[in-house]
Amino acid sequence: MKRFMKTGLAAGALIALPSLALAQDAAEAAPGFDEIGPYIMTTLLFCMAGFLVFFMAAGFAMLEGGLVRSKNVTMQMTKNIALYSLAAIMYWLIGFNLMYPGDGWTIAGWVGPFFSQTVLDPVGVPAADAALDYASIGSDFFFQLVFVAATASIVSGALAERIKLWPFLIFVILLTGVMYPISGSWQWGGGWLSEAGFSDFAGSTVVHSVGGWAALAGAIVLGPRLGKYGKDGKVHPIPGSNLALATLGTFILWLGWFGFNGGSQLAMGTVGDVSDVSRIFANTNMAAAAGSVAALILTQVLYKKPDLTMVLNGALAGLVSITAEPLAPTLFGALWIGAVGGVIVVFAVPMLDKFKIDDVVGAIPVHLFAGIWGTIAVVFYNGDASLGTQLMGIIAYGVFTFAASLVLWLIIKAVMGLRVDEETEINGLDMAELGMEAYPEFSKS
Amino acid sequence: MKRFMKTGLAAGALIALPSLALAQDAAEAAPGFDEIGPYIMTTLLFCMAGFLVFFMAAGFAMLEGGLVRSKNVTMQMTKNIALYSLAAIMYWLIGFNLMYPGDGWTIAGWVGPFFSQTVLDPVGVPAADAALDYASIGSDFFFQLVFVAATASIVSGALAERIKLWPFLIFVILLTGVMYPISGSWQWGGGWLSEAGFSDFAGSTVVHSVGGWAALAGAIVLGPRLGKYGKDGKVHPIPGSNLALATLGTFILWLGWFGFNGGSQLAMGTVGDVSDVSRIFANTNMAAAAGSVAALILTQVLYKKPDLTMVLNGALAGLVSITAEPLAPTLFGALWIGAVGGVIVVFAVPMLDKFKIDDVVGAIPVHLFAGIWGTIAVVFYNGDASLGTQLMGIIAYGVFTFAASLVLWLIIKAVMGLRVDEETEINGLDMAELGMEAYPEFSKS
Amino acid sequence: MKRFMKTGLAAGALIALPSLALAQDAAEAAPGFDEIGPYIMTTLLFCMAGFLVFFMAAGFAMLEGGLVRSKNVTMQMTKNIALYSLAAIMYWLIGFNLMYPGDGWTIAGWVGPFFSQTVLDPVGVPAADAALDYASIGSDFFFQLVFVAATASIVSGALAERIKLWPFLIFVILLTGVMYPISGSWQWGGGWLSEAGFSDFAGSTVVHSVGGWAALAGAIVLGPRLGKYGKDGKVHPIPGSNLALATLGTFILWLGWFGFNGGSQLAMGTVGDVSDVSRIFANTNMAAAAGSVAALILTQVLYKKPDLTMVLNGALAGLVSITAEPLAPTLFGALWIGAVGGVIVVFAVPMLDKFKIDDVVGAIPVHLFAGIWGTIAVVFYNGDASLGTQLMGIIAYGVFTFAASLVLWLIIKAVMGLRVDEETEINGLDMAELGMEAYPEFSKS
Repeated sequence: MKRFMKTGLAAGALIALPSLALAQDAAEAAPGFDEIGPYIMTTLLFCMAGFLVFFMAAGFAMLEGGLVRSKNVTMQMTKNIALYSLAAIMYWLIGFNLMYPGDGWTIAGWVGPFFSQTVLDPVGVPAADAALDYASIGSDFFFQLVFVAATASIVSGALAERIKLWPFLIFVILLTGVMYPISGSWQWGGGWLSEAGFSDFAGSTVVHSVGGWAALAGAIVLGPRLGKYGKDGKVHPIPGSNLALATLGTFILWLGWFGFNGGSQLAMGTVGDVSDVSRIFANTNMAAAAGSVAALILTQVLYKKPDLTMVLNGALAGLVSITAEPLAPTLFGALWIGAVGGVIVVFAVPMLDKFKIDDVVGAIPVHLFAGIWGTIAVVFYNGDASLGTQLMGIIAYGVFTFAASLVLWLIIKAVMGLRVDEETEINGLDMAELGMEAYPEFSKS
Repeated sequence: MKRFMKTGLAAGALIALPSLALAQDAAEAAPGFDEIGPYIMTTLLFCMAGFLVFFMAAGFAMLEGGLVRSKNVTMQMTKNIALYSLAAIMYWLIGFNLMYPGDGWTIAGWVGPFFSQTVLDPVGVPAADAALDYASIGSDFFFQLVFVAATASIVSGALAERIKLWPFLIFVILLTGVMYPISGSWQWGGGWLSEAGFSDFAGSTVVHSVGGWAALAGAIVLGPRLGKYGKDGKVHPIPGSNLALATLGTFILWLGWFGFNGGSQLAMGTVGDVSDVSRIFANTNMAAAAGSVAALILTQVLYKKPDLTMVLNGALAGLVSITAEPLAPTLFGALWIGAVGGVIVVFAVPMLDKFKIDDVVGAIPVHLFAGIWGTIAVVFYNGDASLGTQLMGIIAYGVFTFAASLVLWLIIKAVMGLRVDEETEINGLDMAELGMEAYPEFSKS
Repeated sequence: MKRFMKTGLAAGALIALPSLALAQDAAEAAPGFDEIGPYIMTTLLFCMAGFLVFFMAAGFAMLEGGLVRSKNVTMQMTKNIALYSLAAIMYWLIGFNLMYPGDGWTIAGWVGPFFSQTVLDPVGVPAADAALDYASIGSDFFFQLVFVAATASIVSGALAERIKLWPFLIFVILLTGVMYPISGSWQWGGGWLSEAGFSDFAGSTVVHSVGGWAALAGAIVLGPRLGKYGKDGKVHPIPGSNLALATLGTFILWLGWFGFNGGSQLAMGTVGDVSDVSRIFANTNMAAAAGSVAALILTQVLYKKPDLTMVLNGALAGLVSITAEPLAPTLFGALWIGAVGGVIVVFAVPMLDKFKIDDVVGAIPVHLFAGIWGTIAVVFYNGDASLGTQLMGIIAYGVFTFAASLVLWLIIKAVMGLRVDEETEINGLDMAELGMEAYPEFSKS
């Protein structure tokens, strides 16, 4: 359709444009902005927010690639591009229809969708056939899809440096195709939690905690990396190989979060909606800034030296914390909610170490603990939310996701093994499993 | 114009805004959305898609910088920022008007534009003088410009690690100023191929194959890197120096492709058009995911170890494959078209090695072979396309671009030499040609 | 609000959408595009441009991280994420209201705002209560906020590798909360310079020179890095540790600049405004390309070898140069204005060395010198600007910012010290100040 473009309306005959025809049709029907504007703007919102959230896949890859040792970087890259790709396929094949059953949230509503793939609007859908009160299916599907991929990315970081590729990817397939969509439908598919009044605007619980619970179950089944916890009971920190990359990843995630939270307004075609999107942008940014500063100050006070990885995770925890309610708080609200997220991370990382749960990148503190906090914090600014219902939702997601993940990890472990052998772990997964180094020329100290 | 902004309409006199005056004018004339909406939305589409495709320049730079050895990284960076910059200048100076001759696609239509640079709409163009059935010239020019730069980036990767800087840049100048615009005009400028019914939505052939053909001609003239093909007939793989960077580059390219294909809808102001843009987003993403997974599985099966560089190139091949027709296919169509692209890459890379054609980053399999495939695949979902015409277009672009490039490379080689001397190649282009290392502190193993 | 989404309008009861209700309200009131369209589009412009400029924080971090030695990379990352976060908080707490006093630019207008934080529009603001002639406060605040962070990033680069973390951050707090807003209000807050006819579209002076002046004062107070200027009077270049990262940072900054300049149109809801945004995109891109090519050619001619860091800084200088007037020039105007910027950088870097002013990343040439040039160049294409007024503005910003910064740096130095001790500087700030290496596994040559 990219044909016959013109250079600038110079003299001479204009060539007919395919899109011109459409424009003329539109002019004939002459639909006003009040009729089609919201559909167009919301579809644009989903496309724009969607590509921002897509880019979070790169953010997770860089963050995780920077926080693992260089001998495992190729594996981390492979896992991250593969998990995104598999999530995209599984969510089309099963997940989207399972999560959003068209005829309401019933068991019956699931059985059919389970076997029917996502179908887009027809090409050039006329206004009369489009969901004018919402948006194009393609944009909605794409926007939902990038969320499920984020969930899987959370798991990838926590279990790095010792899990085998294929068992991990099988978990991802089931997480993105079935588990996440089922629990997601409870809330966003119009299910029982949504009816009960649970409130989770953009997914502190539905996305981040779910990823965190799945990661926690995996970390327990998998066990810690060799050498992380000494026989003397001491914790031996294993430094990441590339903090510039980890910082880049954090900034990319922060960028993507404007889409994550802003797009979750689900509408941009009215004065109120577009203003709300911009409120969300401002609050999201504030929470990240506050989480970052809180971790900076706290690590300075506690350890006398600011800890960059804590600052990065503090920013991310601030983002996760505001995700359940990025709209209602004032900027000051976003500030303190985000700051608490940053504080949580600084205390939670050593706490996990006490339980010998080895979370390579800090995904569990950031996405699970700050996710729980953010979901609770909804009650401070959203009058429709109650603490009881929020806790019920948190527990429901926790029980289901942790239990289902635990069973799944144990089955995978029993059937095909989950963890590489000791020699492979010591030498690095890259050479043993993939035969390829990420930085073959930079000699290791 | 960024003056007199207000903080929030607090009490007190509002200061007059320059843009307020415009808004008031608009209110007087009161044009409805049906009149000016499509122009505004399409111009926005071009700006947005344009900055996404612009960012692909960074994607190519990171991909290529990650896949060359560290001794050639500074050169690869220099080439990539220089080629983008030169493309921007040449396309303004000659290319845009040559590709889109205002009075139709005639020889006469070319002669004038060849000597006239691109001229933008006047500042604050009134609706009466604007191309209301299309978009602002500035946005169109910018959107076209980033495409031509992508074409040149393809060449840069294939010929890395041995070509001299300036001969390469001279080729870029002629490719972006003359060669690409001429062949591009055949299709997108309303030329003979477009009239013949050839179909290439966003440029599997017009952009990617063209880059691939130019790269192929260059690789043949230039010859392989020292040591790549042993005297014993064996192929010696030369690993890239930074696979994290290469992965980042791939994700950036994937991100940019939403603009590449989505923007090629060339319209966003109607329900049908914005829905189509979102269809394209969903399909583009699916094809990339499928290409990536196909390469992952295939390299596991063939080599028992998944190959990250193949997975990255598989994703890119999926993207190239869907570029000729990202709108018409179903999501399942996008999946299998993209997957075939991924398969092509896995088989084509060793095939090129058989012919001792040394393509450093796999640009020829990804952009040329998958580009041909994508152009053929149009016939499966677009009823207006015929296999014969698609093949005719593929051959026309191939013959012209390969022949013109071959002649150009040979002339440049004869006049000023194309390849660095052996010592420079062994020591790396960075120190010898630029006197600067990319990673001066990381000792080489 | 992300509840009850539908999968595709399959048969069955549609679930009521919260946003549907809004859409219906809108339909009842039926406001036309002429009434609410500009507000929606401009708010979108600020959000979109805002996230692009936000991403410049990552660009600065990568550019600076690539140009310092690896022993100082963790510190540079820490500074960059911390400065952005602190800027976000300070600009909310004080800066925004100080810069844009609601009741006009008076001393009285400042006293109040100084003690009142930024307040967003209420959730779901009805059209009747919104600033329909402008945009949502949230979007305006966010867009302004990312500018102030850019100013602070400029300082961070120049003073790298020797300044202590906390003294630097204290300067940032005062720069972003007080200094920048005060001088910014002179022009963009409707102050005396704006009334005098000074013209600075997107901030060559208001943002970039201000950052440059603050950096210059800091570099003088701080002194050069150990070993940079030998006792023999020779300059010893200190190469950056990662030019791939520096290149990535440059591309990210270039990307962000489309938002920086394009968003500064401050309106996108009319044919004239959206066309102007696209003009700005095209001109911004051209100036960057020209700056890059100018530095490439000039370093080839002067030093016989192109210098990648000069090419990167040339592109950035081109961008800074066009920032004062990215709208009025023709593409050719943008080309030569940007090219002059690139030339300035190539000559200014060694000039600063003559004065033994050690600017690690070239921030002063790029942001201060090219910023001055860009502000002067306004007179060539903007008929409303006069050379005298432009010079007056340049001098006013220079005197105020340089003097205030100098005093501030001296006070901080006296009170808590500014510079790390010699041993720390030699061993690197990362281990001594932060106890953490950026690349712990890559042995240093």
